[in-house]
Amino acid sequence: MAKEITARSEDYSQWYIDIVKKAGLADNSAVRGCMVIKPHGFAIWEKMRDQLDAMFKESGHVNAYFPLFIPKSFLSREAEHVEGFAKECAVITHHRLMNDPNGGVVVDPEAKLEEELIVRPTSETIIWNTYRDWINSYRDLPLLINQWANVVRWELRTRLFLRTAEFLWQEGHTAHATREEAIEEAERMQQIYADFAEEWMAMPVIKGVKTPQERFAGALETYTIEALMQDGKALQAGTSHFLGQNFAKAFDVRFLNEHNQEEFVWATSWGVSTRLVGGLIMTHSDDDGLIIPPRLAPTQVVIVPIPKPSPEIGAVADRLMAELRAEGVSVQYDRDDKKRPGFKFAEHEMRGIPVRLGIGKRDLEKGQVEVARRDTKEKTFQPLEGVGPFVKQLLADIQAKLYQRAQAFREAHTTRVDSYEDFKAVLEQDIPGFISAHWDGTDETELRIKEETKATIRCIPQDEEAEAGVDMLTGKPSARRVLYAKAY
Amino acid sequence: MAKEITARSEDYSQWYIDIVKKAGLADNSAVRGCMVIKPHGFAIWEKMRDQLDAMFKESGHVNAYFPLFIPKSFLSREAEHVEGFAKECAVITHHRLMNDPNGGVVVDPEAKLEEELIVRPTSETIIWNTYRDWINSYRDLPLLINQWANVVRWELRTRLFLRTAEFLWQEGHTAHATREEAIEEAERMQQIYADFAEEWMAMPVIKGVKTPQERFAGALETYTIEALMQDGKALQAGTSHFLGQNFAKAFDVRFLNEHNQEEFVWATSWGVSTRLVGGLIMTHSDDDGLIIPPRLAPTQVVIVPIPKPSPEIGAVADRLMAELRAEGVSVQYDRDDKKRPGFKFAEHEMRGIPVRLGIGKRDLEKGQVEVARRDTKEKTFQPLEGVGPFVKQLLADIQAKLYQRAQAFREAHTTRVDSYEDFKAVLEQDIPGFISAHWDGTDETELRIKEETKATIRCIPQDEEAEAGVDMLTGKPSARRVLYAKAY
Repeated sequence: MAKEITARSEDYSQWYIDIVKKAGLADNSAVRGCMVIKPHGFAIWEKMRDQLDAMFKESGHVNAYFPLFIPKSFLSREAEHVEGFAKECAVITHHRLMNDPNGGVVVDPEAKLEEELIVRPTSETIIWNTYRDWINSYRDLPLLINQWANVVRWELRTRLFLRTAEFLWQEGHTAHATREEAIEEAERMQQIYADFAEEWMAMPVIKGVKTPQERFAGALETYTIEALMQDGKALQAGTSHFLGQNFAKAFDVRFLNEHNQEEFVWATSWGVSTRLVGGLIMTHSDDDGLIIPPRLAPTQVVIVPIPKPSPEIGAVADRLMAELRAEGVSVQYDRDDKKRPGFKFAEHEMRGIPVRLGIGKRDLEKGQVEVARRDTKEKTFQPLEGVGPFVKQLLADIQAKLYQRAQAFREAHTTRVDSYEDFKAVLEQDIPGFISAHWDGTDETELRIKEETKATIRCIPQDEEAEAGVDMLTGKPSARRVLYAKAY
Repeated sequence: MAKEITARSEDYSQWYIDIVKKAGLADNSAVRGCMVIKPHGFAIWEKMRDQLDAMFKESGHVNAYFPLFIPKSFLSREAEHVEGFAKECAVITHHRLMNDPNGGVVVDPEAKLEEELIVRPTSETIIWNTYRDWINSYRDLPLLINQWANVVRWELRTRLFLRTAEFLWQEGHTAHATREEAIEEAERMQQIYADFAEEWMAMPVIKGVKTPQERFAGALETYTIEALMQDGKALQAGTSHFLGQNFAKAFDVRFLNEHNQEEFVWATSWGVSTRLVGGLIMTHSDDDGLIIPPRLAPTQVVIVPIPKPSPEIGAVADRLMAELRAEGVSVQYDRDDKKRPGFKFAEHEMRGIPVRLGIGKRDLEKGQVEVARRDTKEKTFQPLEGVGPFVKQLLADIQAKLYQRAQAFREAHTTRVDSYEDFKAVLEQDIPGFISAHWDGTDETELRIKEETKATIRCIPQDEEAEAGVDMLTGKPSARRVLYAKAY
């Protein structure tokens, strides 16, 4: 049986790893910190990518592709940027191997590069160096470009999907004529990420801005969406940065405005990554395995013949599949004639297929089919006639239910506190969750709380009324509450 | 005006570069040999990728993703493979930079990797190292996996799209229980590539197998599709390899067959890359710019208001766009009110949009629209009523015509020769093309001809009757003709 996964209550981290591996999502690789994304995991990422890509194009963006490598000197151009990335990057120093007289191959010392190349940890520098050639006048703006790419950050502690040395992502890099337009763009993309997270991943998120401490290296403002995982830790699920003119100045990208004056260009960048797959797993799944929101499920419905395939069941399954596909539902028929139904049920549950239809001989006689939903495990019998529309509606229900469940969970695990004692007490709980508290706005307080409790300010929420108060630690005045949590 | 490109007859190489740059397809980057794929070029690649991906999935393949990095020792495992790739690879030796007291950043000598990592030039080694864990029994086979990825080969002489240090591609890596099945798979994928080239790119190809000299490093057989460019040079457009058990042996990948006996697994790999964009350009384009076959054109139709946008023309354009989109045609309206129509015509021609619709005030009065096709430059007036179906048919005609034109060109530039003198004479022509000649089957003859003439054996054609003869150079017996050409 496929059910051998650790329970969440027993060991949450192990539960997560078990799901990733047993649902066939990803594996560790022979290269430290790099993962292999297996077909089922990749199919979920493809669904995410296709939907996000459609939303980007809908909002006027186009795709392009920039080099994997960044000359070392580019990184140093923007002071904060290099601080943020220099310590965790893969460095290419040579361009050739040679045979080793002792067998195998060794680096050819003759093939040393004049200037080392960095495998991109993010592409602001190489892209802004390119934009210098593309932008001359306000007529060339805005430039609304996205790329889907792999990036590398040499993380020491890695965890499949959530933090890996190499990961897949998209990075948008836009150029604008005015500060206001750039800020509008950064906020627009944050909203697109929030819509995607909520409507497609069924993962409720808090929109907010980062504190200066937590900003992207080189940004003037970082907009974020923050989700809450089932262990009460927060996940930063997507960020959108207003970069001001920092990169335009670093790479000398100027344009002639409508009044024929030269100005530096305004910039944004924004990205989400395969980390979202980790967020999806941890938002919805249970002790039987993965749960995928129907809108992102590569296969939404599986039909299982009971106890095994027969021509009669096969004929009905074919008809059902045609009917479901006509409704836009993706469906598979489990033709395996070696595994028993119980084993198959567990396997499809482990892989998170939202709806299972079981058909046995008696069901055929009665003109019915057994419908099992993955999220609640409820089973009902439905008349064969009209199963298509029924299942389509059921998938929509599951999508909505998953969102509601996650939202209820987040509400149950968001606490307002006014004293540091209460704050620490909440963090001691099994599922600490979000903590809404006052902050005096200083780096010192933020860093001290982080050091003492491991909790960080996830964001200053945007959709919340400002409310004056005092910092729970220092007693200094605070203009509004911020959201703290332990985080991935 | 956008028409400033070099004529093919004047300087073919420069013509190619001019089109790549002026049609907005790609640019050189700050990193030697790496290109920036610009939005228009990337949109064409996306259309190619989406169609190929659909064909792969249709034939039972799934996507996955393997690490960018390959441990150096993996490369040495398969002797021919390392010979083929070690001399042109990017080597990562360190994982951190540090501040340089003199400013900027330098490689941190403390952060040297124990074992160097290679940026994948192709992924057989890392993938077969992974397959060892995935394959135990014949029930795990076949494994039909593809990945879309970037790869790096440190080429010294690069040319945008055709040969770049980094390029985008797909690489299929399949595992099979028998030799026959693996060969069947390698041939199936060659056929899929041929179908794609001919039906989508409108680029006729010759299917053949490579000589041992020209095989992929580590393959027992390399199947290829070869196209002829307008300068009479051949382009290898896609290859599919039967790898035998070489990689299974190198990475110890065995399985239990149905008789419970242990065997090494049989392998294939196959790939096409952004090089196809170069092939598309060089197959169809002319001295006015790019020509894109309609099935791969990101925008198939552009509507140009004459002399400039007006509410009346806008209303008709909206109606036309709705009608065309309903027919599945992608269409844009050129709203720019600063450029003159002549300039716009040249620009859209340069970018290769297959059909242009011009609408002026007099056309509105007459209830007509001017239809210009990019391939032949023919213009006709069509009644506004029924333009949708007319344009849809026209796009199909252009697609067919482009293929026929390319095929006629190839036929006109394929020569059968029986003497080495004739062979060399053909190669001296302006457009040498394919040369069908006898070959004695030895490496020596092949290498000598390559050295003396720069022509190589592109393939031993599969769809041609065997015909006995004698080698044109050595006079030794030959079982069949092979196809020579100078090549990219």
